[in-house]
Amino acid sequence: VNGRELPIDALHTFGLAAYARAGMHDDDARVVVEVQLEADLRGVDTHGFQRLPWYVDRLVAGENNPTPRLNVVKESSASVVLDGDAGLGQLVCTRLMERLVDKARAAGVAAGATRRSSDWGCGASYPLRAAEQGFVAFGTTTSVPTIAPFGARTRMTGNNPMVYAVPRRDGPPLVLDMALTPVALGKVMRAAAEGEAIPLEWGFRDHDGNPTTDPRAALGGIVPAIGGYKGTGLSLMMNVLAGILPGGFHSAAVAGAAGAGRRGQFFLLVDPDSLGDRDRFLADVETMVDQVRGAEPLAGESVHLPGEIEEVRAQEARRRGTLRYPASVVAELEELGRRLGVALG
Amino acid sequence: VNGRELPIDALHTFGLAAYARAGMHDDDARVVVEVQLEADLRGVDTHGFQRLPWYVDRLVAGENNPTPRLNVVKESSASVVLDGDAGLGQLVCTRLMERLVDKARAAGVAAGATRRSSDWGCGASYPLRAAEQGFVAFGTTTSVPTIAPFGARTRMTGNNPMVYAVPRRDGPPLVLDMALTPVALGKVMRAAAEGEAIPLEWGFRDHDGNPTTDPRAALGGIVPAIGGYKGTGLSLMMNVLAGILPGGFHSAAVAGAAGAGRRGQFFLLVDPDSLGDRDRFLADVETMVDQVRGAEPLAGESVHLPGEIEEVRAQEARRRGTLRYPASVVAELEELGRRLGVALG
Repeated sequence: VNGRELPIDALHTFGLAAYARAGMHDDDARVVVEVQLEADLRGVDTHGFQRLPWYVDRLVAGENNPTPRLNVVKESSASVVLDGDAGLGQLVCTRLMERLVDKARAAGVAAGATRRSSDWGCGASYPLRAAEQGFVAFGTTTSVPTIAPFGARTRMTGNNPMVYAVPRRDGPPLVLDMALTPVALGKVMRAAAEGEAIPLEWGFRDHDGNPTTDPRAALGGIVPAIGGYKGTGLSLMMNVLAGILPGGFHSAAVAGAAGAGRRGQFFLLVDPDSLGDRDRFLADVETMVDQVRGAEPLAGESVHLPGEIEEVRAQEARRRGTLRYPASVVAELEELGRRLGVALG
Repeated sequence: VNGRELPIDALHTFGLAAYARAGMHDDDARVVVEVQLEADLRGVDTHGFQRLPWYVDRLVAGENNPTPRLNVVKESSASVVLDGDAGLGQLVCTRLMERLVDKARAAGVAAGATRRSSDWGCGASYPLRAAEQGFVAFGTTTSVPTIAPFGARTRMTGNNPMVYAVPRRDGPPLVLDMALTPVALGKVMRAAAEGEAIPLEWGFRDHDGNPTTDPRAALGGIVPAIGGYKGTGLSLMMNVLAGILPGGFHSAAVAGAAGAGRRGQFFLLVDPDSLGDRDRFLADVETMVDQVRGAEPLAGESVHLPGEIEEVRAQEARRRGTLRYPASVVAELEELGRRLGVALG
């Protein structure tokens, strides 16, 4: 088959070495590598090691800061804002979440945000960390402008993913991780590269607003959002939470260097004890889970909890101890290794 | 034309009298009437006076409590949970929001929820009140189960609307008020009543999961959510926030008496000063607004801010001093008036 299984341990070591060569401290590199490996473990491979060369390039080009001084710019008992100093988003978001969990433990409800951060990579990771520690968590991020206001063609805000995570009594949290576009732009890019048409149902329109199956016209045209004005409206609202509230770059200004050092994130944590009783909460979540599991599937379909497919995939990969990458990704990682003088496994 | 303009003042008086006859205190009735009139002013007429007879019926039938004792069941400096004692949702949500604004003013961030509440009517109203007082606000509610888990046919959670409101320096807040279904079920019901087919693009499927244009098959079948698994996932997450967190009815248990006394709501308020600086925040919101206004419209389309169409409609109606209702609604209101011994205007 066209690809290769690589040991997770070797990937971890390789990632640490690559970021060290790019100037990062070991503690910081470890955080970034673990969030990136979590993407691959969960099968969100567009945000995993496939992007390692891209991140290293940003660091080397000086668009991202390898040794950012993360600065608390505003803080209260229930809130904290972290300036990311153009560090990698995985680092900035993880450090913010560590602070936010402490706030939420004390205050019951806590909101936090980042500014001058970057691509957060595997967005599920941060609310997931909070939910593993018992909090209901929400997170969102700004991203490079691809979505126009409803009825317009001017790109203005990102597909700004929204993530929700809910703790469970036993077992991994429920996680919903969703961008605001019905179909990932990566799929359209792949179709363009392969010269294939895209389905009309994907909802892309050309520059003039006409429905199109031509992936190049789609990439230069109107990117749809889920639910039409609803998705474009959510894109604006997430832009307010993750861009404007923390005083960071927002709206069209997130563009440039693929948003490196120009993105922001927003997180909310709620302790179930602050609005009720934790034991009762966890029992009710199980009742909901049982109802999902008991729902009658449509013919040929199966029913999953939010995040369940990703969680099962991660458990299987951990059991195997390896992750599979396409040959093209392996080649790029080997090329990066040669360039940096680091061996891949 | 088939309809009638009624003076807003007369509607207000009529509503107060109708709820008084149904046993409500004047203060409480005033709150409910004003939220219902706001729905009509904003053009969300499905949640306006059209429903007055329905609410009165619920009160008379004892499914809703005309004199609820709203009880704070849990409270901290940044959170509050209100038991609605089966009162009307407009009353319960308004009273919660009054408390929550005080909390957010002191704590910077505040979360609140209701349980044993009811249909919230015009959901935009509550975050809008908070935004008028300077807070970024989010709200959601449980509702009667219409949506099945993705891939299943068993209805389990509601189309649980999400509302975001953002304060502006001058002028009315931005408001995004959206249910999780791409097309309101009311439109399918109307098509069924008129014996008309519905467009395939609406995404409804029959009981077996096959796409359908038959409105009756659609109403008995699979109700779509925006973005497929995204919308159904949001429905579950809103169920956690508004149903499970406050310890209320949740998931399939929201059904029964159309959810009267069985719904819950969740609200979050963030003071822009808690994560940054209010003046800078308000300036940045204007920059975003300017970008929306400056976006190049597609041919034949126009571009609006979230909530702008509704706000303009409300301003026009206030200027006129009247609201227009279809003949059928006027007839039902007159019938209610005869029944209660109250004159309509």
